Amino acid sequence: MPPLGLRRGRAWAALLGQLLRPPRAACAGPGRPHSQFAEAVLTSQLKPHQEKSNFILKTPKGTRDFSPQQMVVREKILDVIVSCFKRHGAKGLDTPAFELKEMLTEKYGEDSGLIYDLKDQGGELLSLRYDLTVPFARYMAMNKLKKMKRYHVGKVWRRENPTIAQGRYREFCQCDFDIAGDFDPMIPDAECLKIICEILTGLQLGDFLIKVNDRRILDGMFATCGVPESKFRAICSSIDKLDKISWKDVRHEMVAEKGLAPEVADRIGDYVQCHGGLSLVEQMFQDPRLCQSKQALEGLGDLKLLFEYLTLFGIAEKIRFDLSLARGLDYYTGVVYEAVLLQAPAPAEEEPLNVGSVAAGGRYDGLVGMFNPKGHKVPCVGLSIGVERIFSIVEQRMKTFGEKIRTTETQVFVATPQKNFLQERLKLIAELWDAGIKAELLYKNNPKLLTQLHYCEDTGIPLVVIIGEQELKEGVIKLRSVASREEVAIKREHIVAEIQKRLLQS
Amino acid sequence: MPPLGLRRGRAWAALLGQLLRPPRAACAGPGRPHSQFAEAVLTSQLKPHQEKSNFILKTPKGTRDFSPQQMVVREKILDVIVSCFKRHGAKGLDTPAFELKEMLTEKYGEDSGLIYDLKDQGGELLSLRYDLTVPFARYMAMNKLKKMKRYHVGKVWRRENPTIAQGRYREFCQCDFDIAGDFDPMIPDAECLKIICEILTGLQLGDFLIKVNDRRILDGMFATCGVPESKFRAICSSIDKLDKISWKDVRHEMVAEKGLAPEVADRIGDYVQCHGGLSLVEQMFQDPRLCQSKQALEGLGDLKLLFEYLTLFGIAEKIRFDLSLARGLDYYTGVVYEAVLLQAPAPAEEEPLNVGSVAAGGRYDGLVGMFNPKGHKVPCVGLSIGVERIFSIVEQRMKTFGEKIRTTETQVFVATPQKNFLQERLKLIAELWDAGIKAELLYKNNPKLLTQLHYCEDTGIPLVVIIGEQELKEGVIKLRSVASREEVAIKREHIVAEIQKRLLQS
Repeated sequence: MPPLGLRRGRAWAALLGQLLRPPRAACAGPGRPHSQFAEAVLTSQLKPHQEKSNFILKTPKGTRDFSPQQMVVREKILDVIVSCFKRHGAKGLDTPAFELKEMLTEKYGEDSGLIYDLKDQGGELLSLRYDLTVPFARYMAMNKLKKMKRYHVGKVWRRENPTIAQGRYREFCQCDFDIAGDFDPMIPDAECLKIICEILTGLQLGDFLIKVNDRRILDGMFATCGVPESKFRAICSSIDKLDKISWKDVRHEMVAEKGLAPEVADRIGDYVQCHGGLSLVEQMFQDPRLCQSKQALEGLGDLKLLFEYLTLFGIAEKIRFDLSLARGLDYYTGVVYEAVLLQAPAPAEEEPLNVGSVAAGGRYDGLVGMFNPKGHKVPCVGLSIGVERIFSIVEQRMKTFGEKIRTTETQVFVATPQKNFLQERLKLIAELWDAGIKAELLYKNNPKLLTQLHYCEDTGIPLVVIIGEQELKEGVIKLRSVASREEVAIKREHIVAEIQKRLLQS
Repeated sequence: MPPLGLRRGRAWAALLGQLLRPPRAACAGPGRPHSQFAEAVLTSQLKPHQEKSNFILKTPKGTRDFSPQQMVVREKILDVIVSCFKRHGAKGLDTPAFELKEMLTEKYGEDSGLIYDLKDQGGELLSLRYDLTVPFARYMAMNKLKKMKRYHVGKVWRRENPTIAQGRYREFCQCDFDIAGDFDPMIPDAECLKIICEILTGLQLGDFLIKVNDRRILDGMFATCGVPESKFRAICSSIDKLDKISWKDVRHEMVAEKGLAPEVADRIGDYVQCHGGLSLVEQMFQDPRLCQSKQALEGLGDLKLLFEYLTLFGIAEKIRFDLSLARGLDYYTGVVYEAVLLQAPAPAEEEPLNVGSVAAGGRYDGLVGMFNPKGHKVPCVGLSIGVERIFSIVEQRMKTFGEKIRTTETQVFVATPQKNFLQERLKLIAELWDAGIKAELLYKNNPKLLTQLHYCEDTGIPLVVIIGEQELKEGVIKLRSVASREEVAIKREHIVAEIQKRLLQS
């Protein structure tokens, strides 16, 4: 893969650079001034939680807060992803966190039990969205749109049993890109795979692979192997577990739980162990069983075309045709794909992080039509980036290297070496803010100079402006570089311009 | 107010400039190619919604989707707000959409009935967050933090009866900035008011005013007027309605519904009609009733100090001491404030939009302590920007001017004048994407040149690269400016560099 765009690449490289720097020596923080109002009478007449029995201070199961450190990394990751979506001409869209319950009914197959319902408090029955795809299809149908290329970054909720170690949560962020519209075959599908490659490359997550299959090939395989049509989706869902459990266990589920004849299961078993490139697609065209199925042949034809486009995009070597790839969700109708990292990018001595798939998607040509009053279909294809898992990887990398990253962007600190200079500090900082300069001061009437300078070192603020009696008398402000400790006196009326000049240079 | 920082100011001015430009003449969109797979058999066996009775395609009551046009404006507004928060040294934080139900209990007074509960599906009892303040206090206590300056942009949910015309929804975005920690009095409080001024000025929403009061003054007033202490919060909540209903109705609610003696209500009535500046604060120090209350005197003393700092910040003339300002939420303990626009910035012939308050906040010194196992308090002060109401104003302004704004950022379109050039287009666009250039093409095997050029005009793409037989033979690409219609031939190997040069110039 060639490198991504310079500007994005630089921003990300800067973060990674920061992540790789050795941690700064710990500095003492500023003292915490005691407020004269700390003991002021509080009017609140509420019962504190600590007086209640068995009160536990926590976030709900499977959810978490994001600390400022985590937010910085998160924003950088989302920036790489959203920049890529915009590079491909996508528009933004947002939908509510919950939908009418019936909108989500019968869209997710076996996983429907994981949907969070809201309590019936009168009025409509509501559920938290389970993904961003069904709300997108609902939006397309509701607004009678025939085509749209949109991205959506938002939280979704699933009542799964979370395995936090794998980066799975009950509340998690999805980053979706979808192309809706009736276009010539496989061009949008190829672009989706290109986008996954660009994002995973841009995030520097190490080597990866995208497994590709087609629901029509799966269905054709099921039909010609002897699976009753009523069991297609259930068997599909079993096959989807092959990356987590063994074929033996999947076979057992299909036969014992889902009532499939053992010989049918074995026929399927022969196929789902196949994976390869374009040559496997061509080989499957000759398969005596599959070539009986019109659906399977259509799927194979599209995959062949897809590989042609992927070669033109220069990413064919990242793609693997894998007959075991099924994807769990009911709404897929054509090509499906899933990206997996080939190794966790952790140092050798670290336990590798099992992150599963980091991106996935596929074609769902029937979903919008389900919402359309006249059943009008709008073909769609899309992808979703598993940003929580990516975030887990980067976070582990940070922990490994004992990173410290700046959580604020403050450029200038307003300090004084003397008592009774709060008024001057407030006047000065207001000037800086009004000029668009990011500035802070300590919320103390008479802070010590050392405390103020330590605060700058501790939080990474590069510049300090200092005002005291001497400066006030001479009509100047002292400008200090925290790194070099150099100080120069600048005329008061030039201080904003001088700071802006320094910030442009840095 | 002096103008805000140049870079932010420019970005916003550019949007406003775009909003004010006359709408472009409508261009025909590209034809919609008919896919050979449009009628492909769909494997989905699900029952479409349209076959069910009384199915209505909508978002839940009080919620809405944000279209790409709305998302562009929304992002610009949020950018102004978040930039201001960062300018004041705030760190980012995110919390889950729902909390344990008991975390929200007894925090919101009379409004608690508006909390959305999740259905009991086994496990914990959960509620959707009602604001970002209580989750912040829970975070502070849970992590045993003593101080923090953070911002949080996120959705909150309230089961209010929405009056959409006023920009009120059941799902809405809040932009919060809070300073937690035991600091010298009124310095953080003054900064919160400065931030509100910077944001409302930066958003160019017209003239505004920030009403300020103090819960201790209100409580002192209640006590000295003869309100029983058990009724303080209930009466506070009635007073809070004075900006929506008349004093007569508020008095009736206090007397008839909340059991206040009529003469007590009338005493309160004398106060809540008072508003003014620093001189009113000084006048109230002499008030025979208020000066009996230690609490009220503390509140007045802080307000006097606050006005001193606001004068240094150059914003005192924007602030009004208003004894009728109460704020509905139970957790406030000191200074409270609320910003209102003095006029909707719509042209004279337009019906003015009643948007109510666009920002509000106050001091809540007891909330973190309620979550702390040992009751340790962390004083806090903060503000919340009512971004939905601001968004309604800007949206109405757009409608008034019949605006059309770009919803994508695409820089280059890849076109061909001939048939059978899909392969060359795909190779070329992959090169552009890999160089970080935002590029699009039509998802059609053989699109007409006119259709492709119309697409560029329609969506505002500034540059087109054209490849056909002639260009392929000569090893060049034609680069066309959509605005000037000028075309130049560029050597194939220089096309990326040439485009990057042009984009830097524009």
